[in-house]
Amino acid sequence: MTTVSWVEIDEDDGFGIENLPYGVFSRPGEMPRVGVAIGAYVLDLAGLSSAGLVEDRHYFASGSLNAFMVAGRAAWHANRARLTELLTDAAHRAQVEPHLIPVADVEVLRPIEVADYVDFYSSEHHASNVGRIFRPEAEPLKPNWKRLPVGYHGRAGTVYPSGTPIVRPSGQRMTGVSEPEPSYGPSLRLDFEAEVGFVAGVPSVARRGVPTGAFRDHVFGFLLVNDWSARDLQAWESQPLGPFLSKSFATSISSWVVPVAALEHARVAPPVQDPEPLGYLRCDEPWGLDLRLEVLINGRRVSEPPFAEMYWTAPQQLAHATVNGAPLRTGDLFASGTVSGPERGQRGCLLELAWNGREPVELGDGTERTFLEDGDTVTIRAKAPGASGSVISLGEVVGTVFPALT
Amino acid sequence: MTTVSWVEIDEDDGFGIENLPYGVFSRPGEMPRVGVAIGAYVLDLAGLSSAGLVEDRHYFASGSLNAFMVAGRAAWHANRARLTELLTDAAHRAQVEPHLIPVADVEVLRPIEVADYVDFYSSEHHASNVGRIFRPEAEPLKPNWKRLPVGYHGRAGTVYPSGTPIVRPSGQRMTGVSEPEPSYGPSLRLDFEAEVGFVAGVPSVARRGVPTGAFRDHVFGFLLVNDWSARDLQAWESQPLGPFLSKSFATSISSWVVPVAALEHARVAPPVQDPEPLGYLRCDEPWGLDLRLEVLINGRRVSEPPFAEMYWTAPQQLAHATVNGAPLRTGDLFASGTVSGPERGQRGCLLELAWNGREPVELGDGTERTFLEDGDTVTIRAKAPGASGSVISLGEVVGTVFPALT
Repeated sequence: MTTVSWVEIDEDDGFGIENLPYGVFSRPGEMPRVGVAIGAYVLDLAGLSSAGLVEDRHYFASGSLNAFMVAGRAAWHANRARLTELLTDAAHRAQVEPHLIPVADVEVLRPIEVADYVDFYSSEHHASNVGRIFRPEAEPLKPNWKRLPVGYHGRAGTVYPSGTPIVRPSGQRMTGVSEPEPSYGPSLRLDFEAEVGFVAGVPSVARRGVPTGAFRDHVFGFLLVNDWSARDLQAWESQPLGPFLSKSFATSISSWVVPVAALEHARVAPPVQDPEPLGYLRCDEPWGLDLRLEVLINGRRVSEPPFAEMYWTAPQQLAHATVNGAPLRTGDLFASGTVSGPERGQRGCLLELAWNGREPVELGDGTERTFLEDGDTVTIRAKAPGASGSVISLGEVVGTVFPALT
Repeated sequence: MTTVSWVEIDEDDGFGIENLPYGVFSRPGEMPRVGVAIGAYVLDLAGLSSAGLVEDRHYFASGSLNAFMVAGRAAWHANRARLTELLTDAAHRAQVEPHLIPVADVEVLRPIEVADYVDFYSSEHHASNVGRIFRPEAEPLKPNWKRLPVGYHGRAGTVYPSGTPIVRPSGQRMTGVSEPEPSYGPSLRLDFEAEVGFVAGVPSVARRGVPTGAFRDHVFGFLLVNDWSARDLQAWESQPLGPFLSKSFATSISSWVVPVAALEHARVAPPVQDPEPLGYLRCDEPWGLDLRLEVLINGRRVSEPPFAEMYWTAPQQLAHATVNGAPLRTGDLFASGTVSGPERGQRGCLLELAWNGREPVELGDGTERTFLEDGDTVTIRAKAPGASGSVISLGEVVGTVFPALT
């Protein structure tokens, strides 16, 4: 049975009563605070709290979700249940309606303060394509790839909210065989990476890992990530310690953090893992997630990456990242790595879509791309199945490329 | 002319009036606050502030140096000049002496809140040795190594203060050719890495780099770093994205942050850089630093790494890390990478000292080491020349290895 809200909602938009994602917003002259997206509105939780309508221990009159994220699963569930009640029982309408603000009237801000940022590499299709592009003579996947979720730390200080201008980064590049010396200048191979991230709410104990079964006790929710990448900087700098400046200039995240509870109906069996992972990576529950991504350049769809194809799941990533005793902190962000499916139209970055420049992508407006041009706007969206046939939207993460500063 | 303090100081200890390093300490039942090490004492800056003896805009009654670090170079210099005056002019002795606390009576805490943590790889001797050990058939240095300071992001959340127990991490390892499958278990190749770090105080503007000449405007000081490393986890996980769990379990830092101003007399010409670096990496001033490190295992000296041998300097590292527009945040920590000299007795980690297990290091107590054993205590110290023949100590960073948790 579908729960019905008294708020007028276009159910296809994916911001219905089954979603209730959290974000941070402000209005001119007012302090940032926590809100929940519902239909075309933001429900002002700080306002609800002032009116005594939700329980609030200083969670909501805050410029980030972190205070609420640390509160833990019982608090998250209680608040979600209360919001569902307030938004479905018409008896509450008169009290609640004053706290619904059209989303068009607010500025939506970065939802979380990021503690550490880890980026994985968990799509077999993506990792295989990258291997084929850069090491055509070798096995596409390294021997460790199917044994553990390969990942690395990124720069937390450059995780920006959706909409932040992306200035083309400069750095050292090898621009081609005709020019054997590295040169300094703007990246000539700027790319996006369509990813899905999750954010930790409840810290874990130092020196004890977070088993796959404890995922829901620590993780607050999921969001979209664009891990902007300068491929020419990356190819030159990454040996032997991995990507650094090619990634650290900017990572964009979406505005609304979708609670884990909202994605329970999107859980599916992940791809079969062969060889069987070591014990600490085994998971009793299916944690594939049927998120359907969509990537647009200047409003033209260029890809539809299927997150359900990801080889390593979020609980496996979390168990791996903490198995050495590294504790979680509130605000730790974990991104999936580029989401790519088996088809060309399912690849999650231009490096793959245009096969390292060899097969330009036609945008359908008479232009084509090998890498991003100044002025290009990249939009990543995702939707998932919710309860009772509903649609859960992860919203979108947007960024426009600006010319390099000189 | 040497400035003389009225505090009784053993000048050879390196905590004289020319040093004045900052840290955070507490006494039982009292709040943590900022202090300066002088001789065998901590000078309580929060106490001095309460007594009206130093200018303080809420810098010092704080659990970290970050508030003071953000205040900037003029505030750092003014405070340093004022402390020098208070500690040298006998007229101030009666007022100041009540705020000198024997360091033995306090708990010294982690001095900084770390924002992002970057680890470089800037010793040519270290990088060459690692290349020879792991890729004996190839050139020891990758083509990029002399073109840019290779580095990567580490985990900020596991930067611990000196003295924190180091629990042997578990994870995936390949234990040898006789066992072609990876297994899960405690690292069998636990190592230290003797490094020197610097910490950013003043943030930089996003999308604008920090040129080498602006180093002093942003960097508060230097400290010692032990970048604990699990070599078996590292060898297995690091392709293609670099080290992750092999480093993220723990990084230890020393207690006292030595101001940049205290190390002016330690500046020396760095090794000649050939090929000449690109323009953004050029530096008008010599920024080699004559820091003489010492590494002890269980009190037995095993190495004396010379920091003056480092190929890439701190201003070059900072210019590189920000050239893509990534802004600095207060508390950003940059470590040098393992400090190794050309001699065997100057290598900064056991991987090199014992040549990947093939040449065990004798401790001189009848035992030898290839990698660290449970119960081992690693101490890294450093001293540098100060003004007028004085000695500047960077103190020490200490950690004892505890058995893996099961």
